[in-house]
Amino acid sequence: MATFSKSVSNLRSSEIRDLMGLANKQGIILFSGGMPDNDLFPLKELDIIYHNLSNKEKQIAMQYCPTNGLPQLLDSLSTFLRKKGLPVDANRLLITTGSIQAINILVKTFVEPGDPVIVENPCFIGAMTVFKSYQADLIPVPLTPEGISMEGLKTQIERTDIKPRMIYITPNFHNPSGILYTQDNKKALIDILTNRNIPLVEDDVYSDLYFYEEDRQHLKSIKEINPEGIDVCYTGSFSKILGPGLRLGWMLVPEEIYTKCELIKQTLDACSPSYTQMLAHKFLESGMVYDYVKKVRGEYKKRAAVMVEVLKAHMPESVTFNVPRGGFYIWLQLPEGSDATDVLNKAIEKGAVGVSGKTFDPHETVNDKIRLSFCNTSEDKIRKGIPLIAEAIREVLM
Amino acid sequence: MATFSKSVSNLRSSEIRDLMGLANKQGIILFSGGMPDNDLFPLKELDIIYHNLSNKEKQIAMQYCPTNGLPQLLDSLSTFLRKKGLPVDANRLLITTGSIQAINILVKTFVEPGDPVIVENPCFIGAMTVFKSYQADLIPVPLTPEGISMEGLKTQIERTDIKPRMIYITPNFHNPSGILYTQDNKKALIDILTNRNIPLVEDDVYSDLYFYEEDRQHLKSIKEINPEGIDVCYTGSFSKILGPGLRLGWMLVPEEIYTKCELIKQTLDACSPSYTQMLAHKFLESGMVYDYVKKVRGEYKKRAAVMVEVLKAHMPESVTFNVPRGGFYIWLQLPEGSDATDVLNKAIEKGAVGVSGKTFDPHETVNDKIRLSFCNTSEDKIRKGIPLIAEAIREVLM
Repeated sequence: MATFSKSVSNLRSSEIRDLMGLANKQGIILFSGGMPDNDLFPLKELDIIYHNLSNKEKQIAMQYCPTNGLPQLLDSLSTFLRKKGLPVDANRLLITTGSIQAINILVKTFVEPGDPVIVENPCFIGAMTVFKSYQADLIPVPLTPEGISMEGLKTQIERTDIKPRMIYITPNFHNPSGILYTQDNKKALIDILTNRNIPLVEDDVYSDLYFYEEDRQHLKSIKEINPEGIDVCYTGSFSKILGPGLRLGWMLVPEEIYTKCELIKQTLDACSPSYTQMLAHKFLESGMVYDYVKKVRGEYKKRAAVMVEVLKAHMPESVTFNVPRGGFYIWLQLPEGSDATDVLNKAIEKGAVGVSGKTFDPHETVNDKIRLSFCNTSEDKIRKGIPLIAEAIREVLM
Repeated sequence: MATFSKSVSNLRSSEIRDLMGLANKQGIILFSGGMPDNDLFPLKELDIIYHNLSNKEKQIAMQYCPTNGLPQLLDSLSTFLRKKGLPVDANRLLITTGSIQAINILVKTFVEPGDPVIVENPCFIGAMTVFKSYQADLIPVPLTPEGISMEGLKTQIERTDIKPRMIYITPNFHNPSGILYTQDNKKALIDILTNRNIPLVEDDVYSDLYFYEEDRQHLKSIKEINPEGIDVCYTGSFSKILGPGLRLGWMLVPEEIYTKCELIKQTLDACSPSYTQMLAHKFLESGMVYDYVKKVRGEYKKRAAVMVEVLKAHMPESVTFNVPRGGFYIWLQLPEGSDATDVLNKAIEKGAVGVSGKTFDPHETVNDKIRLSFCNTSEDKIRKGIPLIAEAIREVLM
């Protein structure tokens, strides 16, 4: 168990996944992974798709495709995104090998070593490892329950000693905090960024996973608002609405940025897998995606409700958390001064694990929070595992 | 036809592919693409594989896998490479999203902007675009019919004004020149590089496509020879032995280099597609790969023979070329001072096209050669198309 414990305090996204196998063997209940549950994948739908592929389509699936994507998928994804309200036709769409590749390409486009990049604090760990791989200087701005702190953002943008090269945000069902930016926050953000010449990378992989119809109005992305005077680079993924194993994401960006990104994409892997693009295309074109996403939305909503119920029943009052309205995560605030790593090491001994807060802190210092995922764990395991985390908190902190 | 003609003289690999669609519409016979023929993909084998996948395997295929690769594929690929004679167990294997990603990761590991990288002249265009994306300073060393020029290599390595950061070579059925390094050349190369602290990237995507059993002894890769005192980074691909649409390649590298590469891989796309890795695994594990490769070997040998026959019958005597013993390419040497772009523009008017020599020249200057691919064109089209290229040569040059 030693190597397992050691790694918990400072996980990278792939390490989280690598730990899955280990944890499965050791019978630990995992609230750590940000991936869909294996039991939720649309296998029947994929069987139907495979059986209906013509030989010609299978050949296309086995061949290279253009760097920007399989033309069939570019068409069906354009339709899908247009339905979401996105300005597809005033921008260019590039299929990427997961949304992490989209972020990587955008960072390579905008950032030189040492360049400042504004990020939310907390921030998606996968994106941060990309920024760090290009030696970006991460400038964290705190998240509030309404979205990125406007005061914090203004301060950073108005500094005269640095010129941020890009801003990276996840406004809809943020990872790890679970929050949904208010529309007022999005508008204020637009006001601040207009004509500043700082591209905004808007990572929107969770917006289809809302639990309440009434929230749909708040899910309007900044790309959808389509503000003038800001280069909004919108990224998305099939990982949450079909399956991460296909490794398919996209970016929707202004033409000029697209041209640079396509050249970079070509040097990264020539093109994304035609094979999985063909499957994703059929999933969208057939409309199966809509029923499927509706189904998983319901399932995640149920799991989130169970986790909230069990957290309320078992956590000490000094521990607070968001009640999720979508996405994959609950963000546990431990009492001030707590060390999440100590808590999680104790929790592992008991048989459950989440991810420590400092994993998502750009400077890896503040560690009084825990991310719990409800996406990948059955109701039954949630009911068993959360009390173990609560026990660990009591034992370590009280 | 204007945009088509314009691009021929300076194609990037993805542009070559993008042109395919255009050319197909315009009925031009293509000798330009370095991809397998759609008609040769093992569709029946893939049907069998799909039908035999268990639900559990389908779930694994839809999920993230560890950054270094799907464990099942790592196992079966290790077996496959061990059979080829590669020192799998003394090295680490990393699955990549095509071999181009393997090259990209290695360049990111070794090269800073401005760093010298030794390449063959001519050189695989896809690799060169990667080197250029990292602002490497390309140092070309001429290819001879026996392999890289030892004299040329020595001169570059012994220069005191530069310190090459890596060497990139394709010893087996080189793209574009089609040559196969002699074992003597490989040994001399090893002698020169030993204890020089210059990593050797050995790109070996064509070695399974030999036409003559007696050549197998010459196909021993440098990685297989496993010299001490050189960090040999071996890269390979499923693109030529299964299908490029899966986007799967690999690197087999020393442990220390592997560790750095895995971290970079994680920031590029987190992991390669589990879905296509599962298919590739079954293709290897079932042994279907051996029959399939035998079959395509025979087919490419036939096409190469037809191309040689038609070239001999139609080309002016002043045009020379390699008689291929494997791989995908014939490299046409035009009379000195010829401009391949002029020839190809004329050839396009007539209805056939290859790729101009300067595409493969690191400094994009020398343009008296044409690469003709026989991999992607039926015998019938070879018989029709080659005489058109010959006509164009006569009209432009004579």
